Amino acid sequence: MTRSQWTLSDVLLRATSLAPDGEIATKREDGEWHQYTYQDAYERVCQLAHALDELGIGAGKRVGTVAANHDRHYELYFAVPGSGRSLHTINHRLPDEHFEYVVEDAEDAVLFVDPQFIERVECHRDAFEDVSAFVVLDDEVPDTALEPVTDYESLLEGRPTEYEWPSLDPETECGLCHTSGTTGIPKGVQHTHGMLVRACNMMLQTDTVAVSGSDVVFPIVPMFHGYAWAYPYVATIAGSKLVLADSHTSPEALTSVIEREGVTIASAVPTIWLDVAAYLDESGKSIAGLERIQSGGSAVPESLIRRYDDAFDVEMIQAWGMTETAPFATISRAPSGLEADCGEIDLYASRAKAGRPVPGISVRVRDEDGESAPRDGETVGELQVRGEWVIDSYYERPDADADGFTCDGWLRTGDVATWDKRGFVDVVDRKKDIIKSGGEWISSLELESELMRNDAVAEAAVIAVDHDIWQERPFAFVVTERDRTVDAETLNAHLRERFPKWWLPDEYEFVDALPRTSTEKFDKQQLSKRLDS
Amino acid sequence: MTRSQWTLSDVLLRATSLAPDGEIATKREDGEWHQYTYQDAYERVCQLAHALDELGIGAGKRVGTVAANHDRHYELYFAVPGSGRSLHTINHRLPDEHFEYVVEDAEDAVLFVDPQFIERVECHRDAFEDVSAFVVLDDEVPDTALEPVTDYESLLEGRPTEYEWPSLDPETECGLCHTSGTTGIPKGVQHTHGMLVRACNMMLQTDTVAVSGSDVVFPIVPMFHGYAWAYPYVATIAGSKLVLADSHTSPEALTSVIEREGVTIASAVPTIWLDVAAYLDESGKSIAGLERIQSGGSAVPESLIRRYDDAFDVEMIQAWGMTETAPFATISRAPSGLEADCGEIDLYASRAKAGRPVPGISVRVRDEDGESAPRDGETVGELQVRGEWVIDSYYERPDADADGFTCDGWLRTGDVATWDKRGFVDVVDRKKDIIKSGGEWISSLELESELMRNDAVAEAAVIAVDHDIWQERPFAFVVTERDRTVDAETLNAHLRERFPKWWLPDEYEFVDALPRTSTEKFDKQQLSKRLDS
Repeated sequence: MTRSQWTLSDVLLRATSLAPDGEIATKREDGEWHQYTYQDAYERVCQLAHALDELGIGAGKRVGTVAANHDRHYELYFAVPGSGRSLHTINHRLPDEHFEYVVEDAEDAVLFVDPQFIERVECHRDAFEDVSAFVVLDDEVPDTALEPVTDYESLLEGRPTEYEWPSLDPETECGLCHTSGTTGIPKGVQHTHGMLVRACNMMLQTDTVAVSGSDVVFPIVPMFHGYAWAYPYVATIAGSKLVLADSHTSPEALTSVIEREGVTIASAVPTIWLDVAAYLDESGKSIAGLERIQSGGSAVPESLIRRYDDAFDVEMIQAWGMTETAPFATISRAPSGLEADCGEIDLYASRAKAGRPVPGISVRVRDEDGESAPRDGETVGELQVRGEWVIDSYYERPDADADGFTCDGWLRTGDVATWDKRGFVDVVDRKKDIIKSGGEWISSLELESELMRNDAVAEAAVIAVDHDIWQERPFAFVVTERDRTVDAETLNAHLRERFPKWWLPDEYEFVDALPRTSTEKFDKQQLSKRLDS
Repeated sequence: MTRSQWTLSDVLLRATSLAPDGEIATKREDGEWHQYTYQDAYERVCQLAHALDELGIGAGKRVGTVAANHDRHYELYFAVPGSGRSLHTINHRLPDEHFEYVVEDAEDAVLFVDPQFIERVECHRDAFEDVSAFVVLDDEVPDTALEPVTDYESLLEGRPTEYEWPSLDPETECGLCHTSGTTGIPKGVQHTHGMLVRACNMMLQTDTVAVSGSDVVFPIVPMFHGYAWAYPYVATIAGSKLVLADSHTSPEALTSVIEREGVTIASAVPTIWLDVAAYLDESGKSIAGLERIQSGGSAVPESLIRRYDDAFDVEMIQAWGMTETAPFATISRAPSGLEADCGEIDLYASRAKAGRPVPGISVRVRDEDGESAPRDGETVGELQVRGEWVIDSYYERPDADADGFTCDGWLRTGDVATWDKRGFVDVVDRKKDIIKSGGEWISSLELESELMRNDAVAEAAVIAVDHDIWQERPFAFVVTERDRTVDAETLNAHLRERFPKWWLPDEYEFVDALPRTSTEKFDKQQLSKRLDS
């Protein structure tokens, strides 16, 4: 038998051993490029591990980061867990109250902060009782009220470039992420080395996102969000070139990074891909080297998948996951036989679903009585998940555990879904977003997806509004494509082709843009508030 | 955190859930085809699990199989470990003494035996003290001295087609394999569910053998040998079509199975691929659908890799492993950049090596003083291995552990190897096969590989013979290609282009065929005995 399961230091050692000259390229916040190799990075990761020892951060203590996507954050991704501490990546876009809460909840011993987020941290300094030091992720310390404070380069300077990595139990916590808290106080999700290593191995598989050593991997998704869906780790275990772009997420910046660095696979939420598609159409720019994009975080309209296929020759791979299942649990690619068996319509309909559970993950769909819903692709129920990188409890939140997990240990995702015979899960809505009208359910997500198939519609969000007779009724917010107009009547006629009459929104509001959450999803809470006020 | 790591029953449940109509096709011993689906297989696996309960085989007890590659053996692969027992696959080609030893060592509670191997088992019946029942893998029991005995179909008949799989710790033993014992008494190697599940996940990866749901997988390697390199499990987790061919291993049978079933990936030892190549040349037959073959068990001559590329358009992927690292630890495919960086000569030279460690496995090369050999691709030392499916002790063999593992827990493979900067391990010889001449080492493997590059040579084996002055000297056995002749002088002139004069064999013997071991490797022990006698 064996006791040699890998931890995250083994992941980095693999790149150092097999791809020492493999490149990590960052477009830093100031627009300058920083390029170095896995070997270079390894030496700095060792220096950082020594620095953490010197700072007196004990084993198992948490190290917080308030940082964008860059090489120094990458170094923290390995030095912190590799040396036996836990990485706590903090979403800088959280509301004040939650921002303070998560740092307190994690009892972060030290915070590593980008210069651009120092002000944000300063405002909350008094609430951070456990934080004994601040490190600015730069080569100098700007004028700041934080203290004690040092800069990252001074912290590393002159330290040894080798480190004796401790032999860790693979079930040691390597990181803590908090949920984005759209449904209440953020909840802590603990990941272990084993969970992330197993998830990385899944992402190298041909039938998932198939990351290979010859790929150029560009995680656009923020590094504070579910480890950027594990891509920094995945690129490292594969020995792929890794590209990071700090906070540069405009479509113009993204396409130029993709072109310049020869990116073959990139990952981001659908709203980013909507913006990129619009920019490419408008500018006539090219993303010729890009082979596939992985979209996650919220549902991808079928129209967008077709658009990337037809206009840009890029395969859009949809994946479904949440912080509790990071990076993801299902993936939507054409399975064996599907392309041959069915027409193009079925193929795209399947690809627009959340997808099939990946190896290591089990799913089930349960109705309100806790019974299995039939796998007919029509009957809805709650999606429940269990597996090799799915948590079975939250960090010190017995209140949340009671709601969050079934008594036999499955994660209750809060997503309403169908499941079909081929194994494709279709998330029809968040439980909280579903519209309950006259005792029946209307899927806001399906309405949005269908609206976005209309040529004149760029973006759409549908929410529930209270109704005296029907309890709730759908209300649609629509952003039209540039230079296009459309009216409610036309859109309802479009929807009527697919949905019963009582599904159609009672009202439409045409807006210039939709508000987005800290993780770039359409912010339905804010839309509701706007109607209430 | 999670406690939901997969076991082998989850692997089968995945196929049943996502590819219930996926096919398992067996060319049985009598030449008839048996075809059924994963759903069909699942129901029979459940019946078999119930039968094991009924036979009173306790949790953790071992179930022995003396069987070829077929659907019933596949059912045992899942029912035995899934229900908490351990599968003991027995090599029917072992010498008598070893055959008895392994059954006693495993304390097999029951033996499942193919009709063709019943006589073999009958001869040793008296030695099998722990075996309380025999099951003939057929639908009737032939005349036999074994007792109590039943046939497999009667055992399953009428039992429920669902089973409540126990929730097992992933580190539960799922199987016991014995080494082939070419260096002494066979040693027991215990595998756990976790080890095999992790290895399967590795084999789905793009940079390894990249098994996908759209593949048709044909393990030619026997199912008694390292779980047929895990392919039955790998095909199942991927939901691929699986093809088995019992004991049909003639080149004619293999190529006809490949053609008939549309095989895309097949695995076997190099001698099989040598035979198949010769047969294809001779017969003019085609293997058009075959995309890649995985070769393992012993080194692949570079000439054979080129031949499959050029003549048959099939990628030969070499993998290195042993029972202790089953299925394998390194794999030889062109890594990122290698194709671009180097010429064709370098590319083939790399592909002819054992390859690079796969994710989950760490390797090192140590000289006789236990120091790291430089990674120059030239300095030899012992290959040592550690990782997620590598054992760190043998089953109840403290004597073997002392030799087999370093004090820090690495497996001492007994292979002599070099390692280069790109990460390619080159196994230059088995420690026991290396020829020690005048205080220097001569690699028998390199001589063989170079001899087989000569157009007139079909097969070559080089062994050490004692020598008064030089201690040992090389002696070559050569099989020429059909209708070709060649003499020692010509072959030595060929070798002289690459090796120093003192490496050249002192003597040659031209033979019609080379003896092979129970696992289809050239049997050098027998060749040595032939010279001694």
